[in-house]
Amino acid sequence: MSLSDVAREAGVSLTTASRALNDSYGVSAATKAKVLATARRLDYVISPDAVRLAGGPTRRVALVVPHIERWFFGEMVNGIERVLASANFDLLLYQVGGPEDRQDFFTRLPARRKVDAVVVVAFPVDQRERERLALMGVGIVAAGGQNADYPYVCIDDYHAGRLAVDHLLELGHRRIAMIAAHDPDQPGWPARSGRSEAYVDALTAAGIAVDHALVRDVDWGGINAAEAMADILEATPEDPPTAVFAHSDELALGAIRTLRRRGLRIPEAVSVVGIDDHPLAALTDLTTVHQSVREQGEIAARLVLDTLAPTPDGDAPTAVTAPTALVVRGSTGPAPDHARSLAASSDDPHPERSGRRPAVPAHPKET
Amino acid sequence: MSLSDVAREAGVSLTTASRALNDSYGVSAATKAKVLATARRLDYVISPDAVRLAGGPTRRVALVVPHIERWFFGEMVNGIERVLASANFDLLLYQVGGPEDRQDFFTRLPARRKVDAVVVVAFPVDQRERERLALMGVGIVAAGGQNADYPYVCIDDYHAGRLAVDHLLELGHRRIAMIAAHDPDQPGWPARSGRSEAYVDALTAAGIAVDHALVRDVDWGGINAAEAMADILEATPEDPPTAVFAHSDELALGAIRTLRRRGLRIPEAVSVVGIDDHPLAALTDLTTVHQSVREQGEIAARLVLDTLAPTPDGDAPTAVTAPTALVVRGSTGPAPDHARSLAASSDDPHPERSGRRPAVPAHPKET
Repeated sequence: MSLSDVAREAGVSLTTASRALNDSYGVSAATKAKVLATARRLDYVISPDAVRLAGGPTRRVALVVPHIERWFFGEMVNGIERVLASANFDLLLYQVGGPEDRQDFFTRLPARRKVDAVVVVAFPVDQRERERLALMGVGIVAAGGQNADYPYVCIDDYHAGRLAVDHLLELGHRRIAMIAAHDPDQPGWPARSGRSEAYVDALTAAGIAVDHALVRDVDWGGINAAEAMADILEATPEDPPTAVFAHSDELALGAIRTLRRRGLRIPEAVSVVGIDDHPLAALTDLTTVHQSVREQGEIAARLVLDTLAPTPDGDAPTAVTAPTALVVRGSTGPAPDHARSLAASSDDPHPERSGRRPAVPAHPKET
Repeated sequence: MSLSDVAREAGVSLTTASRALNDSYGVSAATKAKVLATARRLDYVISPDAVRLAGGPTRRVALVVPHIERWFFGEMVNGIERVLASANFDLLLYQVGGPEDRQDFFTRLPARRKVDAVVVVAFPVDQRERERLALMGVGIVAAGGQNADYPYVCIDDYHAGRLAVDHLLELGHRRIAMIAAHDPDQPGWPARSGRSEAYVDALTAAGIAVDHALVRDVDWGGINAAEAMADILEATPEDPPTAVFAHSDELALGAIRTLRRRGLRIPEAVSVVGIDDHPLAALTDLTTVHQSVREQGEIAARLVLDTLAPTPDGDAPTAVTAPTALVVRGSTGPAPDHARSLAASSDDPHPERSGRRPAVPAHPKET
């Protein structure tokens, strides 16, 4: 079975058949579909050599991801893959943990393969690496973190943090702990955490002094957050927190484990809020700030396509802020003192229970 | 900066420099390291054209994954990537959801790129697809599910199911519900579920008749499991289950949400056990059957390497069963009746509490 058989059966020239099978330009969608259907019917196996276009685009994009096994990165790759695969790109996946892996990646990238673009997922790119990429002349897009030299998509971390902390303040909490986390593989990144700044600003705006006994910054991971929560409780025996703002849902679940094991009921004794809306947040009734990571991946992929084929008017967006929204579930409720003071001035015999779900609308995904 | 500059600086011939940079054979590790270091120092950008070896191995492996965003697949890809990347392979990632995506993938694979091997992750390969792959002459490895025609790695699902159900039986439970799940994108696969067979056999061996009111098989997902749990409770108002065996941790967490929302305490009223040891199992104190998915990925990658370069004696393993182990945490305890009967014949005033953690050793990862 040869290419000429396919061409003859499809009723097109050899050149057209070749172009159609190579996803090359100059062939109508209808003709392309007809040739592909014929090739399929004849079980025609196209020789990879026939497809190699000398010097043209490779139709390959490299994804550089620190930790593919974590939900955030998996969702991001999921969104990127869906869009780029349907635009007929192949994805090369590189897991790049620490700075050494990263140097190796950037050094070897041009040697080992050619790609049209690189997507760096939640990942800093330093000056030397930028120069290297510029030398290669490939498009770069950043997803899930600001690398301001490149088109990027991310959420507004400060806004997300304010949604979480303001929610706790509105519930009457004044002793609010914070568990932040950094990726030990990316020291010093992000340089400033919008989520931490939001915490400080929200407390300050409410006239509450930041108590450093209530704040921990740990290596990323739920177990580390569980230990940080225990630390905070031990550091504040007289005046423990009534609420916890965790920088992510996994951290929040770690804090909850410690609280539950100590017999502290959630949310009656302590409220907990996270950020992400990880699928397990819905399963564990965790109040959180929703972000759609898959959509951010889709946006990143469209930024890649824009980079590779700029629109004629050249005004494609180069920085996209994805939306976030508070999702109130069962892990947050009125501050214990606040509930008692409400009870004193109310006819409701069960203010804790009736106050458990404040009148903040849940995210539409919640049923 | 040319290849001859690198060769001269490194004090090797042009051929040796080229071989070293191309990861080709016939160059000692020391020489290769020297050439690479020189190339790095000189910031030498290797032309991709110079690397292209006519007709040789591509050093590319395709990973075919149904759902990259789920923990199981992310961990698997993580393990595969670590081993294949250090053996200097590039990974092409293909997310292939339902049967149509799959047909498209297998049809286009030979047309669009050449790879040395394909790894199918938890994914059935049908007869026609097998023929297509045979025609291409590439190595195939299956990970996370038996595709018996190919080298594969997976756990023993039957054994994992027995560990979970036998644990509940030893705690005195006799009303044990089961929540199973299938991937709606892979209808009819697996044809027979070892985890369900284990449930039936374990109950039968204990002289307990299977009550179909206690069994649900849902589309994969925690929310579906939460609904199945509600269904089971509604179907058995007179004689509800005292324990639940869920086919995975995400399903178990869904069941727990329903139980908690109905005020049923875990494990005092209902015990729950899952399978996987998802990182959030430790955070939510879930008893489960541990499997190391990352290690299975590493094994799959080694099976790929064996496929590409068979050992001289040709006795490399072609089917690997990864170990599983029960990890007892706080979500399982004695059956309520069992606890009461123990109390009647014991001096211990709090049998529920003291019996909460049976003397089964926790997994060494637990602290």
